[in-house]
Amino acid sequence: MATINSNFLKLKAGYLFPEIARRVKAFSEENPDKAARIIRCGIGDVTEPLPAAVRAAMHEAIDEMGSRETFKGYGPEQGYEFLRQAIVDNEFAGLGISADEVFISDGSKCDTGNILDIFGKGNVIAITDPVYPVYVDTNVMAGNTGDADEKGAYGGLVYLPCTAENGFVADLPKEKVDLVYLCFPNNPTGAVATREQLEAWVKYAKENDTIIFFDAAYQAFVQDASIPKSIFEIEGAKDVAIEFRSFSKNGGFTGVRCAYVVIPKTVSGKDDQGNRIPLHQLWSRRHSTKFNGASYPVQKGAAAVFSEQGKAEVKALIEHYMGNAKLLVQAAKDAGLKVFGGENAPYVWVGCPAGLGSWDMFDKMLAEAQVVVTPGAGFGAAGEGWFRISAFNSRANVEEVCKRLAALLA
Amino acid sequence: MATINSNFLKLKAGYLFPEIARRVKAFSEENPDKAARIIRCGIGDVTEPLPAAVRAAMHEAIDEMGSRETFKGYGPEQGYEFLRQAIVDNEFAGLGISADEVFISDGSKCDTGNILDIFGKGNVIAITDPVYPVYVDTNVMAGNTGDADEKGAYGGLVYLPCTAENGFVADLPKEKVDLVYLCFPNNPTGAVATREQLEAWVKYAKENDTIIFFDAAYQAFVQDASIPKSIFEIEGAKDVAIEFRSFSKNGGFTGVRCAYVVIPKTVSGKDDQGNRIPLHQLWSRRHSTKFNGASYPVQKGAAAVFSEQGKAEVKALIEHYMGNAKLLVQAAKDAGLKVFGGENAPYVWVGCPAGLGSWDMFDKMLAEAQVVVTPGAGFGAAGEGWFRISAFNSRANVEEVCKRLAALLA
Repeated sequence: MATINSNFLKLKAGYLFPEIARRVKAFSEENPDKAARIIRCGIGDVTEPLPAAVRAAMHEAIDEMGSRETFKGYGPEQGYEFLRQAIVDNEFAGLGISADEVFISDGSKCDTGNILDIFGKGNVIAITDPVYPVYVDTNVMAGNTGDADEKGAYGGLVYLPCTAENGFVADLPKEKVDLVYLCFPNNPTGAVATREQLEAWVKYAKENDTIIFFDAAYQAFVQDASIPKSIFEIEGAKDVAIEFRSFSKNGGFTGVRCAYVVIPKTVSGKDDQGNRIPLHQLWSRRHSTKFNGASYPVQKGAAAVFSEQGKAEVKALIEHYMGNAKLLVQAAKDAGLKVFGGENAPYVWVGCPAGLGSWDMFDKMLAEAQVVVTPGAGFGAAGEGWFRISAFNSRANVEEVCKRLAALLA
Repeated sequence: MATINSNFLKLKAGYLFPEIARRVKAFSEENPDKAARIIRCGIGDVTEPLPAAVRAAMHEAIDEMGSRETFKGYGPEQGYEFLRQAIVDNEFAGLGISADEVFISDGSKCDTGNILDIFGKGNVIAITDPVYPVYVDTNVMAGNTGDADEKGAYGGLVYLPCTAENGFVADLPKEKVDLVYLCFPNNPTGAVATREQLEAWVKYAKENDTIIFFDAAYQAFVQDASIPKSIFEIEGAKDVAIEFRSFSKNGGFTGVRCAYVVIPKTVSGKDDQGNRIPLHQLWSRRHSTKFNGASYPVQKGAAAVFSEQGKAEVKALIEHYMGNAKLLVQAAKDAGLKVFGGENAPYVWVGCPAGLGSWDMFDKMLAEAQVVVTPGAGFGAAGEGWFRISAFNSRANVEEVCKRLAALLA
């Protein structure tokens, strides 16, 4: 009989967001009169229309598909040159990244999970806590962890706690680690790392031969000009870091699907003979063999994000969501809660009222205010006692959430 | 220092199709006068326009993205209900498959590769030879094989030779295997399995507790009504088989990207305690954690394949390509070559002229006739001495290929 990957059985309950969806569905069915009042600030999903520049480019691409002269079949697995070059020109100008170091995909969730395919066993892996659950869960699936304890922490991982004390930016590990996941602006806390903090990380990585997985999915929300948007703004990062980027949150592509990972040719790991092998070569092979390119109309749409019109529309989207974040920060402060984030990120990270755990607060917000938030504990043990409010919503909904929060905690 | 997955280093040279692309590029650069004459019948990529019904549905979906009332963000990871249900109603009617056993993805290459994530180590894996290279390469990457020998055969895999003697339908394994990949209509040989042959496979799987990976990406090309299009037409298959399907070759989605895998809830493997665990549960978790749903406009386009207009357009596409296949079969026969396939599949499998190996014939066709074919040896050791001609082309190109083949071998 075929053996299954028993590591999957170590995973705790459902993935966070399906669990939230399940609770919201159950509440709606039990309270049909209140179902229509529900406002979703849970999953970090954009709500505003896809930019007109993107739609126009996608329409055009679909029209091209209508004649055999301009029809596009299989594209390059690594992505079309027009998109790879546009990314380099617009996002990494002057940072020494070349277009063939950019790999286009259908999503950062896929990329951050699949990247483990190219790594071996026995690596010491550090993960900030709280954190985007995909990093942990994919390591569990890959057999890089032991079992979970009662708080949901897995044996074998090095957890780097992010707390109010360190401003939700993890301290450098005391031990030597081989891989570390960093996400700035952070999901879920909204924290950002300063240039000095990132320099310290790159220095640590160089000294310890560590590879940094830098998840910059929310870089477009950085308002403070002194905060780096890319790890490659840091001297030496091209030797130790790869960076994940997405069109989901800036271009509103959560339903359209496009992302990319930047793998400089200078980052390497060692094979079982101790030889240094460039990660670029491994990921290129992985991408060619297990992926068949992102959808052509989607790639055309992504490229339009970098047109003049696209840039203006993305800027307006960011301003809209950051306007929401500002209102939510103020409302949570006014309600007497501790508040982090929301200044350079679309997430507001809020302390639960005294005596309430994360899931208690989730249930209370749902039952009494019909507002869906994300329980901090769902992002890791160190998230207990906090919850995340997403700023991805209409202004009217956010204003309503602010009112309900005030009423709930009055 | 981080260890890399050293299994990647066992992989032979490039993936087949990039290697073909490399040789074509080199030829074009060395012979600029002949570059324009090149006709590509190598990679199995569709060439005709995307059906108008699909384009209309995609345009509509993009327009929906333009207003916040109808905007779609993250969809269900497993795919939208409208598409899962349309698939069941149109492709599996009466076969007892339910919509929640269908998982939508962005491509069969991804699905057939990623499926290994949910399996453990130590499985005995059987692969027909010749075969779609992704099955083998992804097993190499996953560490399920030893090194390759000089013919490219990997240690640890059970190869099931497909030859002219068995009509390119593999005999049942003599030993007990845990997983077996079957692809019908076959890529690359174009062979199909009869109902009796598939019944024998399902019986073998039941007796040996084997899981069948049934790749039916080319099912739409079956012309003979007695040939099953789905493994689930065979009694008992729902206990032992999963099936991969794609919109690439029927709907012309190679550049649009949409596929699916059907995993009946009744198929299971054993965990390391010997408990039976349904594959459905494992894949659902994998899909939720490492994938974020296929693009919404793409899923709307896929659903349109099942509209009345979509069906009529797909039928015309299939007739077009199968008309090409008929011409290619005749031309190869007229040239005095052995010919298989091309009757229920868009691939024609042709014996090389005496004394020529697969890559010799590839190079000869490119250099002397400027026709790109696929060398049989690229699909496995048993493919040596054969080459594949793809029927995916315009009629004019196919007629020209027939002429050039006649001239080349006159």
